Amino acid sequence: MAHIKLPDEELPGITGLFNFRPDTAVPLRLLAETLLRGNSLLSSGERELIASYVSHLNDCHFCHTSHGAAAMAHLDCEIGQIDDIKDGFVKIPISDKLGALLNIAGKVQKSGKDVLAEDIENAKSKGVADQEIHDTVLIAAAFCMFNRYVDGLGTWAPEGNEAYREMGRRMAFQGYVKR
Amino acid sequence: MAHIKLPDEELPGITGLFNFRPDTAVPLRLLAETLLRGNSLLSSGERELIASYVSHLNDCHFCHTSHGAAAMAHLDCEIGQIDDIKDGFVKIPISDKLGALLNIAGKVQKSGKDVLAEDIENAKSKGVADQEIHDTVLIAAAFCMFNRYVDGLGTWAPEGNEAYREMGRRMAFQGYVKR
Repeated sequence: MAHIKLPDEELPGITGLFNFRPDTAVPLRLLAETLLRGNSLLSSGERELIASYVSHLNDCHFCHTSHGAAAMAHLDCEIGQIDDIKDGFVKIPISDKLGALLNIAGKVQKSGKDVLAEDIENAKSKGVADQEIHDTVLIAAAFCMFNRYVDGLGTWAPEGNEAYREMGRRMAFQGYVKR
Repeated sequence: MAHIKLPDEELPGITGLFNFRPDTAVPLRLLAETLLRGNSLLSSGERELIASYVSHLNDCHFCHTSHGAAAMAHLDCEIGQIDDIKDGFVKIPISDKLGALLNIAGKVQKSGKDVLAEDIENAKSKGVADQEIHDTVLIAAAFCMFNRYVDGLGTWAPEGNEAYREMGRRMAFQGYVKR
């Protein structure tokens, strides 16, 4: 049970919180839409992988699995391959560029100050553009927020990957903003 | 110098990043406006104190000092009293209620999962409402994002409190959304 009384306790993770506080849901939904589906040099699949990876590092099961499912939907991968994000990308093919960005995202998860000039130089040597570095840092930072919001209020989350399949498809192809 | 090439290197902290990427500035500005100046049971002064306190815990000088200055403007305190936020609120009078919320904010800064049922019970015993717990957790979580965004991209920040006086007044009384 969540730490606060939510109007619909059946809604998992952030969805019950959006329902509790519509005022704050508006900018949070718009931020997710802009970061994950808006204009960017990174594909939505790559951005959802970064989001899911950071959420795994923050031990947030709801965000890790739902954004993992969105990534699988974008990348046309099996739902079970979400687990590969935890395993360090053994099966999902990632480019050298995305590898360098995931390294930066992992640093941001610890602290902004952990991102060193050498991490940036390494990414640039792989052909990463400034806007891609910007977007990666901001996505990683944003999931340090979303993860703390979801777990700091003690929301519940469905267990297995399969339970997130449809949610992931909706996130990937319908998006984050209420229409 | 920032990790990426910003169009106007003189703009400090998040302001240079907003200038670099207007697409993401829109939801980020709207989120700050909603969290810190929107409808809430907490005053804007209390919310800015929470923001500044979490930014101090994250060692983000720009966010700590600018939101500290906004808090001082709301609370009609001297600019030098920003330092009291670092010192654990010896001079700035805070209510038992705000004390219990700052404790929760400090837990969120570490991890959402660090917020325990006893922290919530303690706050409720001080008369804190569910919406105040919600807003505190989300503000603390949001500053775990803003702090990582500002420092993860290596932006620069003015040094002393005095340099933030006017910025704090603008944040407090004109707000965060471009008009």
